Amino acid sequence: MKNILDRNQDKANEVRSLLKEKKVLMVNIISSPGAGKTTLLERTCEELASKINIGVIEGDVTTDRDAQRLKKYNIPIVVINTEGGCHLDSHSISKVLDSFDLNNIDVIFVENVGNLICPSHFDLGESFKLAVVSTTEGDDKPGKYPMLFREAKAVLLNKIDLIPYTNFNFNSFKADLDKLSPQIPLFEVSCTKGDGLKVWYGWIEDQIQISL
Amino acid sequence: MKNILDRNQDKANEVRSLLKEKKVLMVNIISSPGAGKTTLLERTCEELASKINIGVIEGDVTTDRDAQRLKKYNIPIVVINTEGGCHLDSHSISKVLDSFDLNNIDVIFVENVGNLICPSHFDLGESFKLAVVSTTEGDDKPGKYPMLFREAKAVLLNKIDLIPYTNFNFNSFKADLDKLSPQIPLFEVSCTKGDGLKVWYGWIEDQIQISL
Repeated sequence: MKNILDRNQDKANEVRSLLKEKKVLMVNIISSPGAGKTTLLERTCEELASKINIGVIEGDVTTDRDAQRLKKYNIPIVVINTEGGCHLDSHSISKVLDSFDLNNIDVIFVENVGNLICPSHFDLGESFKLAVVSTTEGDDKPGKYPMLFREAKAVLLNKIDLIPYTNFNFNSFKADLDKLSPQIPLFEVSCTKGDGLKVWYGWIEDQIQISL
Repeated sequence: MKNILDRNQDKANEVRSLLKEKKVLMVNIISSPGAGKTTLLERTCEELASKINIGVIEGDVTTDRDAQRLKKYNIPIVVINTEGGCHLDSHSISKVLDSFDLNNIDVIFVENVGNLICPSHFDLGESFKLAVVSTTEGDDKPGKYPMLFREAKAVLLNKIDLIPYTNFNFNSFKADLDKLSPQIPLFEVSCTKGDGLKVWYGWIEDQIQISL
């Protein structure tokens, strides 16, 4: 395991150097299955694809369904099928970076495989990890799956429109998160309804500006 | 990887023999984080713990929160913390079986780590796998994460009370599931509200009777 992680880290460092040279921000989006990563990307492309050059890497166990959903935005998209594998690694990312014209890309969003555990152990060479978690998964996810919430630069809490129909307790959620990462930016949104997304759009645009 | 799986399989075969000899049913419950495994166990203990001898193995990355929720039923519970690991394996199960008085147990429910991918690769020596999936994760989970749905003996679709507030399409879900496992029993339930659970209770009681 240590060997695998060491080799992954070496390649991640290479990827990070290349992206820095090309001034490309790379965001590694991690969540449970069905937390709303693809819907977040749909919204983000809808809002920003006209002014920012976006690329997407879609990590999936099998199928290209998520990539199909993003096709309408006419952005470069590459699918990585892990064929049963539970996370992306830096080698798979390195291999597909050639498919992008990095001189004409501002940000690459990597949608990792839906999994709250394994992807947080693997550095892809990203600029930062974004944790996406949905209210319908319950308020105990930062407490029960702490690794991702320690590693991430920001947390996006999705499906806030469904809080009235669930037993999600925001204060418990926030208390657990504060223990792990007290200053972390937290975006409270509904990707299907659009609630709260303006703050996210502004923040991600700022991150892209900083990397240029 | 093949070595790990081979050794896991050998130990799983041992576990399965022991449980068969002791006439104990073991159900390996697998789902994404927050799909409702613990709430299902709460409901099932509430309904059946007075007439059936239930034991529980709680697999968690860290914390014993799920076990704490089940304490009120006065049943034997063992926690396995994987310390960052993404699934249970047959060795960890074998080690904790000693903690149960198997002559006085009818069924052991194993709540696997919340993960729709890795746990489906590891035979624990269970009688069968139960796939739990919730409507709020979206209707595309069987299509996108087929391994579990091919392996499972039954599927429990949780959070049906939330369908009116989401874009979950039951027909799409069922069509994907039918492609993988056309005859699989499907329980449509709400573990928080109690809807549909009677059919589940009856079915699991039947499975326990068959194993005696």
